[in-house]
Amino acid sequence: MTSVEPSGVVTLLTDFGLADPFVGVMKGAIYKRYKDARIVDLTHAIEPQDVLTAAFWIDASYRYFPEGTVHVVVVDPGVGTARRPLLVSAHRHYFVGPDNGVFSRVLRSEVGREVRVIDLARLGVEELSDTFHGRDIFAPAAGELASGYRWAPELGTLLREWVSLDLPRPELQDGRLVGSVLTVDRFGNLMTNISRRRVAEHPGSRVRIGGLEMEISRTYGDVGVGEPLALINAFDALEIAVREGSAATQLGLGRGAEVELLLSSADRG
Amino acid sequence: MTSVEPSGVVTLLTDFGLADPFVGVMKGAIYKRYKDARIVDLTHAIEPQDVLTAAFWIDASYRYFPEGTVHVVVVDPGVGTARRPLLVSAHRHYFVGPDNGVFSRVLRSEVGREVRVIDLARLGVEELSDTFHGRDIFAPAAGELASGYRWAPELGTLLREWVSLDLPRPELQDGRLVGSVLTVDRFGNLMTNISRRRVAEHPGSRVRIGGLEMEISRTYGDVGVGEPLALINAFDALEIAVREGSAATQLGLGRGAEVELLLSSADRG
Amino acid sequence: MTSVEPSGVVTLLTDFGLADPFVGVMKGAIYKRYKDARIVDLTHAIEPQDVLTAAFWIDASYRYFPEGTVHVVVVDPGVGTARRPLLVSAHRHYFVGPDNGVFSRVLRSEVGREVRVIDLARLGVEELSDTFHGRDIFAPAAGELASGYRWAPELGTLLREWVSLDLPRPELQDGRLVGSVLTVDRFGNLMTNISRRRVAEHPGSRVRIGGLEMEISRTYGDVGVGEPLALINAFDALEIAVREGSAATQLGLGRGAEVELLLSSADRG
Repeated sequence: MTSVEPSGVVTLLTDFGLADPFVGVMKGAIYKRYKDARIVDLTHAIEPQDVLTAAFWIDASYRYFPEGTVHVVVVDPGVGTARRPLLVSAHRHYFVGPDNGVFSRVLRSEVGREVRVIDLARLGVEELSDTFHGRDIFAPAAGELASGYRWAPELGTLLREWVSLDLPRPELQDGRLVGSVLTVDRFGNLMTNISRRRVAEHPGSRVRIGGLEMEISRTYGDVGVGEPLALINAFDALEIAVREGSAATQLGLGRGAEVELLLSSADRG
Repeated sequence: MTSVEPSGVVTLLTDFGLADPFVGVMKGAIYKRYKDARIVDLTHAIEPQDVLTAAFWIDASYRYFPEGTVHVVVVDPGVGTARRPLLVSAHRHYFVGPDNGVFSRVLRSEVGREVRVIDLARLGVEELSDTFHGRDIFAPAAGELASGYRWAPELGTLLREWVSLDLPRPELQDGRLVGSVLTVDRFGNLMTNISRRRVAEHPGSRVRIGGLEMEISRTYGDVGVGEPLALINAFDALEIAVREGSAATQLGLGRGAEVELLLSSADRG
Repeated sequence: MTSVEPSGVVTLLTDFGLADPFVGVMKGAIYKRYKDARIVDLTHAIEPQDVLTAAFWIDASYRYFPEGTVHVVVVDPGVGTARRPLLVSAHRHYFVGPDNGVFSRVLRSEVGREVRVIDLARLGVEELSDTFHGRDIFAPAAGELASGYRWAPELGTLLREWVSLDLPRPELQDGRLVGSVLTVDRFGNLMTNISRRRVAEHPGSRVRIGGLEMEISRTYGDVGVGEPLALINAFDALEIAVREGSAATQLGLGRGAEVELLLSSADRG
């Protein structure tokens, strides 16, 4: 990838929660490197150590930021061990975080991606704790990168291999595409791992989940208040919702629940 | 209203919660339009689809920001239907959000207000989801407006009518002004719909709620620790509190509970 | 202290929670004074009126920000009473908040500290509520200070005495240093009041808590998944954790629980 001009924006996605000052202190470490950073919280409510959900959300979110934004992802059960600190250039954005698979989705496409291990000496890390690399490595690296004072190649050396996780993918079985619920949002909507593209490959399909079967609607208003529906959500994923209600509560389903795309007979034939 | 110079500050008030990256992604969409925006979260903990509480808080909050601030309110059960996206100029501030009554309180006064429907073509919206207009319409409009690159009249055309909700108002009944609890804050304080002005119209009144009767105090320190009191709070509303405790817990009351201002006999006569 | 150039960064630490717009409105009041402030939330989840925990966290956190940062701490049960509003210069940082002991830890060292009472007239406070000095006094003072328009001596007059709280300190008893759990973080880690320095004074010590006894590890990876460990955390405090689990849940312990550093026999002798 040719170097992309930094936007000055830094996003944070962690499992730190907001009850303690951990996230705030990371922002201090960013401002120490770059006083004009604009810092955005993506979420800090990832379940502790849930690397897969972090991998999903950073991939679903980065594209809504200006090119050249630095995305910091810290879900890091291996902090203080030999796992490496990464700096990734991909899709004309930058990503900083541990080498534990958190960038598995961002790195699926092979075009123009560059993965580096952060060089602590070149980054100028003076004090390093064994338990908070978000503050001591990833925030300084993000601040340095966002500032434009130094480019990615100055902060680390290229890697050829890194940790990549198997992401749960939907599977074709007897005229059905069988997927699962990835995450439940604040409204009780069930976001699945079946993408807009997979749905488009099978026009006329219906959706089955928790004993209910339905066609695919366009938006919440297409059904009555309190009624369930399936739609393609704003992150290009098949979602099960209840208009002005909670699908999670009404269907009694959550993360990991099975969802089926029932292919039309034309499609199966 | 003559156009007011934008302050560069954008506030966000939604029912999106902070568990998912929805709010963060809206901020990305704002920065895509205006890299120097300063973005403030008012709250994202409005109960899902509770338009009335959003209408209350945006009216109570906007005045504490610099003139020319853009306030984005997204509590939007009708997203994806025919409800219109609005851009409001009022009180020397800007407001952006759905036409569902969320600006009912902000628009009570008729002086100098201008309500526009956002023109998606002029805003340059390229991709529009059916379920996340916070990201696809309201955030870009707010960024554009806050940047000063374009003025409100360039982004939409004037409307003469819009959705307006009936807000619960206190009523005079037999020497009592009967109101209700609008919201319970983090400390368990009960904020009512009886304003400082209504209290001032009836000097010497006492307050009755949940079987308790009390005079109106100035601040928490006016009563002993653990004792209940009534006061005019910092948002100019009558509030029931317990010093260093929770009125909601101690009185067993919440939103919708009745509160009475008992007018003095002089006042009634 | 010679005046330190402001960094333009303002941090906020309160017990306001995030459900209501109180924190957002404070940020509005800061921007009214200084449009280019960069504002960081440390935490707003301090238990209501828990001055001691606020005193702990502001002291543990300020050092990770650039010099000249203004730290606003509002845990303020005495708001509206005669308690004074303070502006503190110490450690080349600024601190603003009520005179109720919230700065007890920041002010332990006597070198170069200056404590002032904020002068409301000089600050130009026009309207003052009786219940929300975070918005009406502390935020404007922080904005003014962070802007560099005015220096600390222009905003208040020096004090010689202020409220100082007794902080719970570990005590030596029969070859043991007996401390306690100060706070439980999001991961269920138990942070104690035994500092890195106290541990270093007693090399070879073991840790006892809740019937368990263990040596001091370096990081989470030093034990198996699900096993408890003691370590010095990133804020230089002795911490009890469970690798990829919750020590609070597994040990059934929380704030106030006793923790002992068992001094080695060499050390005792």
